[in-house]
Amino acid sequence: MRQNTVRRRALLDAAIDVLADQGARNLTFRAVDARAGVPTGTTSNYFANRDALLAQGAAHVHVRLAPGEDELAEMGATAPTREVVREAMHRLFRRVSQDRAGYLALLELRLEATRRPELRQVLMDTAGQNIHENIRFHVAGGYPGGRPAVTSLYLAMSGLITEHLTLPEAWEWTTFSALIDQLVEQIVPE
Amino acid sequence: MRQNTVRRRALLDAAIDVLADQGARNLTFRAVDARAGVPTGTTSNYFANRDALLAQGAAHVHVRLAPGEDELAEMGATAPTREVVREAMHRLFRRVSQDRAGYLALLELRLEATRRPELRQVLMDTAGQNIHENIRFHVAGGYPGGRPAVTSLYLAMSGLITEHLTLPEAWEWTTFSALIDQLVEQIVPE
Repeated sequence: MRQNTVRRRALLDAAIDVLADQGARNLTFRAVDARAGVPTGTTSNYFANRDALLAQGAAHVHVRLAPGEDELAEMGATAPTREVVREAMHRLFRRVSQDRAGYLALLELRLEATRRPELRQVLMDTAGQNIHENIRFHVAGGYPGGRPAVTSLYLAMSGLITEHLTLPEAWEWTTFSALIDQLVEQIVPE
Repeated sequence: MRQNTVRRRALLDAAIDVLADQGARNLTFRAVDARAGVPTGTTSNYFANRDALLAQGAAHVHVRLAPGEDELAEMGATAPTREVVREAMHRLFRRVSQDRAGYLALLELRLEATRRPELRQVLMDTAGQNIHENIRFHVAGGYPGGRPAVTSLYLAMSGLITEHLTLPEAWEWTTFSALIDQLVEQIVPE
């Protein structure tokens, strides 16, 4: 397998776009080659098979959607208050809004895994690990509400992001920003 | 268009199974005929086009997943307490667990609508209407917490159901039943 990391990352970005735009069923090496604008056969030089591409694509989405190192450093240097959690949720929402394809690709992968059990381990190593890392960060950091707060907030933000990406018209009587504030106030103690 | 309602319902059930098992892209009249075990061409006698099938399929899922009339009557005859809301959430979870294909089909339709804007109205007339009806029921019924409680609970239950259907392994350290209790306690005032 080729190791050029810039090229590999470009192919993963293309794979995420294909997943989001055409669904997991249409994710082929050839579709990724076309999307990335590289010669046919390139993707097959970088990934052993389609499941390896899906696994690395999913891991790459989590990297794309994760908070930046400076954001984490700033959080680490601040007292663990509800306000810090609230700001982190708004930043997560902004990152997802600016990277629709990334989150939609993850949803595609989740649905594909219901049909192809061999993908479940891929999901556990990516989305599952992300859930556990979220919980660990909140609890170890001493943020208010501990495990019950972070798990409920994770579930509610997942629901909110899915609504935002797929059916924002149903929520036009409010704003997603107001909904995020509301969730944090209800779920995270002061 | 044919009107036999039993046959039409069987075709819609088959369409939902195709959506859940094979994704929106693979929902064709022929696939529905095959799934329903009817002669090729039957589905096309009942639905004007593929979008009509998707629209009626989505509406049918909401009927399948809605509380029964006896459940609603019982709720209407009881004081609107947090405990009643809690029980309703557990019943919703049980209905979804017993009808995985229905909820997965709705998620497929949501993703397909991100790619095909002409499906957005279908979603608004089904999922969007369901959201508004949930809010109206909670507020008009005088359940605790009003609109902020029902909207947050809707978002969190959507996230929880998606986790349950697509990645239950990530939540094996707890139970979905305990998570539902926790959400209601945090979000709905006593």
